[in-house]
Amino acid sequence: MASWLSIPSGSHFSLANIPFGIISTSAAPTRRPAVAIGTHVLDLAAFAHGGGFARFSALPPGQLWVFAETTLNAFAALGRPTHRLVRQYLQDVFRTDTPYPETLKANPTLQQTALLTLAGVQTHLPLTIGDYTDFFAGRNHASNVGTLFRGPANALNPNYSHLPVAYHGRSSSVVVSGTPLHRPRGQVLPAPGGTTPVFRPSARLDIELELGAFIGRGNPLGRAVPVDEAEEYIFGYVLMNDWSARDIQQWEYVPLGPFNAKNFGTTISAWVVLADALEPFHAHGLPNDVELQSYLREDRKDNVIAVHLEVDIQTARGNKRTITCTSSENLLWSWPQMVAHHTVSGCNLRTGDLLGSGTISGFTDGTHGSLLEQTKGGKMAVEIGDETRKFLEDGDTVVIRGWSGDNPDALVGFGECTGQILTALA
Amino acid sequence: MASWLSIPSGSHFSLANIPFGIISTSAAPTRRPAVAIGTHVLDLAAFAHGGGFARFSALPPGQLWVFAETTLNAFAALGRPTHRLVRQYLQDVFRTDTPYPETLKANPTLQQTALLTLAGVQTHLPLTIGDYTDFFAGRNHASNVGTLFRGPANALNPNYSHLPVAYHGRSSSVVVSGTPLHRPRGQVLPAPGGTTPVFRPSARLDIELELGAFIGRGNPLGRAVPVDEAEEYIFGYVLMNDWSARDIQQWEYVPLGPFNAKNFGTTISAWVVLADALEPFHAHGLPNDVELQSYLREDRKDNVIAVHLEVDIQTARGNKRTITCTSSENLLWSWPQMVAHHTVSGCNLRTGDLLGSGTISGFTDGTHGSLLEQTKGGKMAVEIGDETRKFLEDGDTVVIRGWSGDNPDALVGFGECTGQILTALA
Repeated sequence: MASWLSIPSGSHFSLANIPFGIISTSAAPTRRPAVAIGTHVLDLAAFAHGGGFARFSALPPGQLWVFAETTLNAFAALGRPTHRLVRQYLQDVFRTDTPYPETLKANPTLQQTALLTLAGVQTHLPLTIGDYTDFFAGRNHASNVGTLFRGPANALNPNYSHLPVAYHGRSSSVVVSGTPLHRPRGQVLPAPGGTTPVFRPSARLDIELELGAFIGRGNPLGRAVPVDEAEEYIFGYVLMNDWSARDIQQWEYVPLGPFNAKNFGTTISAWVVLADALEPFHAHGLPNDVELQSYLREDRKDNVIAVHLEVDIQTARGNKRTITCTSSENLLWSWPQMVAHHTVSGCNLRTGDLLGSGTISGFTDGTHGSLLEQTKGGKMAVEIGDETRKFLEDGDTVVIRGWSGDNPDALVGFGECTGQILTALA
Repeated sequence: MASWLSIPSGSHFSLANIPFGIISTSAAPTRRPAVAIGTHVLDLAAFAHGGGFARFSALPPGQLWVFAETTLNAFAALGRPTHRLVRQYLQDVFRTDTPYPETLKANPTLQQTALLTLAGVQTHLPLTIGDYTDFFAGRNHASNVGTLFRGPANALNPNYSHLPVAYHGRSSSVVVSGTPLHRPRGQVLPAPGGTTPVFRPSARLDIELELGAFIGRGNPLGRAVPVDEAEEYIFGYVLMNDWSARDIQQWEYVPLGPFNAKNFGTTISAWVVLADALEPFHAHGLPNDVELQSYLREDRKDNVIAVHLEVDIQTARGNKRTITCTSSENLLWSWPQMVAHHTVSGCNLRTGDLLGSGTISGFTDGTHGSLLEQTKGGKMAVEIGDETRKFLEDGDTVVIRGWSGDNPDALVGFGECTGQILTALA
């Protein structure tokens, strides 16, 4: 699929992708929906206003207001059949052999108002997030961390293979890629085995490499989503860095789970890759060795999305290193299983709710989604140029990249999920 | 303080209270703010529209739109100085010796449109909740439950006295008093010590008696709220029933805390009692025996609000019993301490966020905020008429009541927080 718009080879935002986000510009500061394509974005508010959807019959003119909203929630709530058609239409508009040349290809006026350079726009949180739930579906991560804390014999808790373990996270502090975060302060134990905490900036600030999924359509309270219908509830996917203060977590997390160790910030990438764009990249996750309860048994077995994932750390002094290359195939649970489990109690999901996969890791050096694993619990430093890291230092910037596919002209990529750690505030 | 409006003695909604809620009527189904007073409500949309605030200068006419909103978020966001003045003005309007008789007392037209009977209105969720956080500040409850699970020597975890333990809860399933909930289904272990779960409706469905606090003004991400300023961030309080499926919880909660055991529903009372209305009922909580970190040390020592609390269970067969009488003085941590701890990592609170206190219990029979404690872990049944209960059965209705003060003509009460358990959905 070739485009009349020049799209550089290797772009995450090929014509096969069409991810959705929220943009603004200094000239037009109102937030509005857009799609990313190559080094450009199509401003959907301007496109709709300029008649760009005149040839698109699946969305009645009266519904085009969803593209004048300041978040993607209204668009996401329309459901996957509509997302699918809108994406296909926009692909048609950009195809070299577009059936609608007058819409944009041969319409310099609309190109002028609606086609902006990616470098010239600011991106914002794509959806208003109701609840944020973080799963723990990366079995290798769970096993690596469990081994560090409890030894290899008890690495995984007995429930781990039976259900997708999860906790409710903090939605207020989910920020879009590029937003710096201050190092959190909190209570930590000064020495292992101690029982009297001190209060200070976290000394074991870590990353967690995750994928996130946004809910499109919700379910009513009391009505579980069947696992084989759950895919239809997912709007799309983002990269996620679930920053974690390990020293705060270790002291606070018994018995109700992590709280301040995680609630100071979670970073997501700006562009939501639609579930439909990732349809060709369905893959098998890790095998499960237990007999699942029927509500978790899927007809479709390849419901883990295969995304190649990388993590860079760039220091304030300018040293930079890719510390992790891994794949989301390292998940035990699929997204439909997570949705089915989340709702099996009757819990309602709402448009804009965010699910995190849990940290995605392999078992070998250079495949870990957290520094905790990479440094064996803070024992072995990672070299970054002439510097070393056990955990993050002030000024460090973490960049997560992810993409599906290996044809450089048809990548379905997420762009970057970036965040810099600033000094703790007094 | 007497009113020209007849207010029955013993009413939770005395002139000393003036709680805020969201109402609708069958004749006017649009949701709108109101205050409860005696057996009436004042429809604030109608009152504002009819000139009721003409004599009130603290809120410019341009800001009266907050009373035409469908939630209290906009009003809550105005901050406590404004809430204080609005409440005082409405008290003045209803006082026998009102300085503004023409506003309502001698204005039958406005009485006709704005003064409705409480029995004739439907109440709704008072605020749109961003994040819901549940604390564990009821030390007696923590101790009772810890003793059941780990014995008296290890009842409280080492962190318990050093920080207000909390977890992030589920906001989508917070419902207003009167909303029935289906019994959740989930994975449970069929026998203690087993490792293979079964999937079934919860057989150990429990209540948790709590107070809730709504955030009025928020804090920016990265900026902790100092404990001595934290009171100003609280809009008001509600009663809360944090329904809990103990059998689901026991299997799922390691290592990240409760999830499906609690996310199927949390019930709150309809009327938000303003923080200012509870100012005369500040009290000391439980003493803490450890040296607190400075961010938790308060100048004001009486920051636990004293609310008398009762729980009734009414069965489908019509038996009814008050199973619990206790007080919110059984909290170790104050609300400002909870706010300070929540934000000390830099976490931002937003208008409409809900904090739960954690279960409030005494140590003796008839003072427990959960059936788990009351029945010694499901071992000793509670008699309700000619029936018995260890945990809730289908059709049971739980009613929580709470009030501050003992002058029956000046109670500051919360009304009821009610919910009935329906059969699990297939």
